[in-house]
Amino acid sequence: MGSIGSPNGDQVDLAEYLFRRLYQLGVRSVQGVPGDYNLVSLDYIKPAGLYLAGNANELNAGYAADGYARVKGISALVTLFGVGELSALNAIGGAFAEKAPVVHIIGTPPTHAQNLGLNLHHSFGDGDFKRFVRVYRESTCAQANLVDPGTAPAEIYEVLRQCLKLSRPAKVSLLGLKGKLGPFDPGMDFRIMHGVIVDILKPDELIRATGYPTYVTPFGKGAMNWVNSCDLVIRFGPLDIDTNTYGFTTLTDRKVIIDIHRYSISIGRGLRQDLNTKDLLRTLLPCSIHPLFTPSSPLQAPIQSAPIDQATFWTRMSKFLRPSDIILTETGTSSSGGQDLILPPQATMINSALWLSIGYTLGATVGVALAQKDLALQNNQPTGRTNLFDGDGSFQMTTRSISVIFGNRLNVIFLINNNGYTIERHIHAVELPGRTRFFGAPTDDPSYPVLAYRATNWGELLLMDTVQVKAGKGFSLVEVVMGQDDAPASLERLVRMAAERNEGLIK
Amino acid sequence: MGSIGSPNGDQVDLAEYLFRRLYQLGVRSVQGVPGDYNLVSLDYIKPAGLYLAGNANELNAGYAADGYARVKGISALVTLFGVGELSALNAIGGAFAEKAPVVHIIGTPPTHAQNLGLNLHHSFGDGDFKRFVRVYRESTCAQANLVDPGTAPAEIYEVLRQCLKLSRPAKVSLLGLKGKLGPFDPGMDFRIMHGVIVDILKPDELIRATGYPTYVTPFGKGAMNWVNSCDLVIRFGPLDIDTNTYGFTTLTDRKVIIDIHRYSISIGRGLRQDLNTKDLLRTLLPCSIHPLFTPSSPLQAPIQSAPIDQATFWTRMSKFLRPSDIILTETGTSSSGGQDLILPPQATMINSALWLSIGYTLGATVGVALAQKDLALQNNQPTGRTNLFDGDGSFQMTTRSISVIFGNRLNVIFLINNNGYTIERHIHAVELPGRTRFFGAPTDDPSYPVLAYRATNWGELLLMDTVQVKAGKGFSLVEVVMGQDDAPASLERLVRMAAERNEGLIK
Repeated sequence: MGSIGSPNGDQVDLAEYLFRRLYQLGVRSVQGVPGDYNLVSLDYIKPAGLYLAGNANELNAGYAADGYARVKGISALVTLFGVGELSALNAIGGAFAEKAPVVHIIGTPPTHAQNLGLNLHHSFGDGDFKRFVRVYRESTCAQANLVDPGTAPAEIYEVLRQCLKLSRPAKVSLLGLKGKLGPFDPGMDFRIMHGVIVDILKPDELIRATGYPTYVTPFGKGAMNWVNSCDLVIRFGPLDIDTNTYGFTTLTDRKVIIDIHRYSISIGRGLRQDLNTKDLLRTLLPCSIHPLFTPSSPLQAPIQSAPIDQATFWTRMSKFLRPSDIILTETGTSSSGGQDLILPPQATMINSALWLSIGYTLGATVGVALAQKDLALQNNQPTGRTNLFDGDGSFQMTTRSISVIFGNRLNVIFLINNNGYTIERHIHAVELPGRTRFFGAPTDDPSYPVLAYRATNWGELLLMDTVQVKAGKGFSLVEVVMGQDDAPASLERLVRMAAERNEGLIK
Repeated sequence: MGSIGSPNGDQVDLAEYLFRRLYQLGVRSVQGVPGDYNLVSLDYIKPAGLYLAGNANELNAGYAADGYARVKGISALVTLFGVGELSALNAIGGAFAEKAPVVHIIGTPPTHAQNLGLNLHHSFGDGDFKRFVRVYRESTCAQANLVDPGTAPAEIYEVLRQCLKLSRPAKVSLLGLKGKLGPFDPGMDFRIMHGVIVDILKPDELIRATGYPTYVTPFGKGAMNWVNSCDLVIRFGPLDIDTNTYGFTTLTDRKVIIDIHRYSISIGRGLRQDLNTKDLLRTLLPCSIHPLFTPSSPLQAPIQSAPIDQATFWTRMSKFLRPSDIILTETGTSSSGGQDLILPPQATMINSALWLSIGYTLGATVGVALAQKDLALQNNQPTGRTNLFDGDGSFQMTTRSISVIFGNRLNVIFLINNNGYTIERHIHAVELPGRTRFFGAPTDDPSYPVLAYRATNWGELLLMDTVQVKAGKGFSLVEVVMGQDDAPASLERLVRMAAERNEGLIK
């Protein structure tokens, strides 16, 4: 820890200190919704080198922060206390369940107003401001109430350290914004914390090196079922929940299991903690790595006039994906079907296997695309594309995120794989020639083309392979019309097993 | 309390029992968002005589339930546990803060799955299902976990009694749906609970009878400022929060105050509890009641080509209102400006003065209009219209509620009083001739006309006084274009005082 620095620098305000620390950890865009108790804190965002991405509402902002954190390793979200933090809670709960390190900064009434128990608006009018603290304790791994400039640096250090180490959301309440902290030391805390930032485990290197046969859970990508007959099962970051194990049917005998977590390894029933498993894997791995899988599409070219079907759509879409792309698949037909996608190198797949909050991926797409944009600027080289596979039922939960995508000129490819009774109207609205477009889609920006089309058969779907979509330039919305009752086989299986479970469990 | 009834009736399932009790208390439409853990419970809604109003997401559904409760005295909301209940939490928090009796029914995993600590989806994957119980304890006045058919009737009775008595949300978790409760007694519990349902205080009768000069807080409607110089101040249901007292400046010396609450009266520093103050007022009031106020508009007719201004808009809009109308005013220019509306007899004003969650009134309008529709059916006579005054910033928080308004053919008059840069696009989308309309607006239903227009000056605004709008038939959206920086004087004052407070308090 230590003090905050050299005697020659200028003093910094508390809020400035926090945002500069976040910048050091890699944050460039902050998700937020303005409100009276956080307006002053927002003034510190730009001077710290950060960009404030305004969102339509707090839930969508929370989802965007989750998406940003999954790409950049950390993210920040600014909301009001009370109304704002409760609106965002489902997104924070999702980040807690699925381990996305979101720093949720909350503008709160000042300390002495809280201590006096004043009946302020955005509270329950009973002077009990601790209610919201108690609520957030259930879905954050660390909490700090920043009041005292003397202790604030240590508190900020600790809350960020926990957030990064546990990879879970942390809450920072800003009560005093302007307390002077003394000069800002750019190197101090950051060096210590940086050691904590560990990339996600990369088991693909081990798989390639050893050639071991591999099973991937739905939370990862892919599904096979011979795992229960194996003599030894090495599991990377296993998550034994119902939806990730086909209703607990793919759980193997603990005796044959080696579980490798981020900071621990368990062998059978033994546990070894406080390890850096990434370093361990590096030591174990041979230097030469050879590719095991060659992505291929064994399917014949489709008949152009034939309807698009779930059974082959996902495998065929594999050819559309490109190296370094990020692919988000929404809970439902997309996340189940997405298990059949054959990913190109360095592709990242983002979905939800535990929290399963419908509407999440559209909100998260905002954060993912912003993170891609920030990475391109930081590294001065293009990144992969942001591709979202969504369904129109989920789409309606967080529709307004489309405005944020347009407002920030985010490059997103958006594929709807349902029967389109809702989305069609959005497409028509977007296409309106010569009129103001819906959701603020720009009409006069040649650098940001907005395309929307609808594919009712394979021939029309192949047309989407245009230069714009290939390049991931601008915004492309593709509605893929499929049968309303058509579903991937894996989803049908999951639903059947859930139904059997409910029948058995609910008496 | 007692047992559940006559020996001759059929046995009822637990969920059926709950929904039939809600029907008895006046609920006819249930707000909800379907999900796997509540799908079975939804099957019991229709057989109980209730209508399930599907919503785009849980926050909007929660707002709708709040609006419904304020009109019908109680409402019901059905969501999933975990993702669903956390998404709705801000609406439930608002209902708790502002005392709307919402029964939040939550479909949860069955008891033995919870007791085993199974890692189920929609949870945090740690087997701790009590997290959500602890979260909801902060914003509900009563909680019940229905498992045991033997105790369920008593638990349902108690949770509904608390909800009605305290006029605050209650949580009912449905773990076992099909436990047989024995025959259903339609009369038993209901009679006891009904005595608890008390109409809101009607101080207008006392004011008319006595002719006492009157001050109304922003949470009510209207504002005057001589209250601090009075010798005696009688206050009805006072709420001493910053936004309701112009930053605590209209608080009077306790020595001269009589506070009349629903179940108590305080005189100076003395307190008398457990009273039925409505009965007390009835006894005190003389029988003949004469009107004190004659609504009038002292303003000259506006110049038709003149821009519409905040200073006179609200007073002029008073002529548009009709007896028994319900008027919702969104937080911001609408709630401040709405203080200048002169209400016709039996009109109801709904706004937010404490929780102030932006986007609330559009969501609540769904519930209010549904409640009006249900009342018209129950009483077989038309009700007043549902009028919403909103701003386009707030509109974007809960936009998808428009789909629910169309889907349920709700009669709503919707007035936007801002500079319209967002709403205009919605209007264009709604107006599209010969194409599918946006948000599912019907194109081929003569009984449900959908109108949208835009008024840029007084002349155009007067045009909206058409037969459709007067009758409150179908859906009318009127965009009122005003200067972006134009604000009601009362809002400017409130903002100035809040700024001074922040300047003084945040150091």
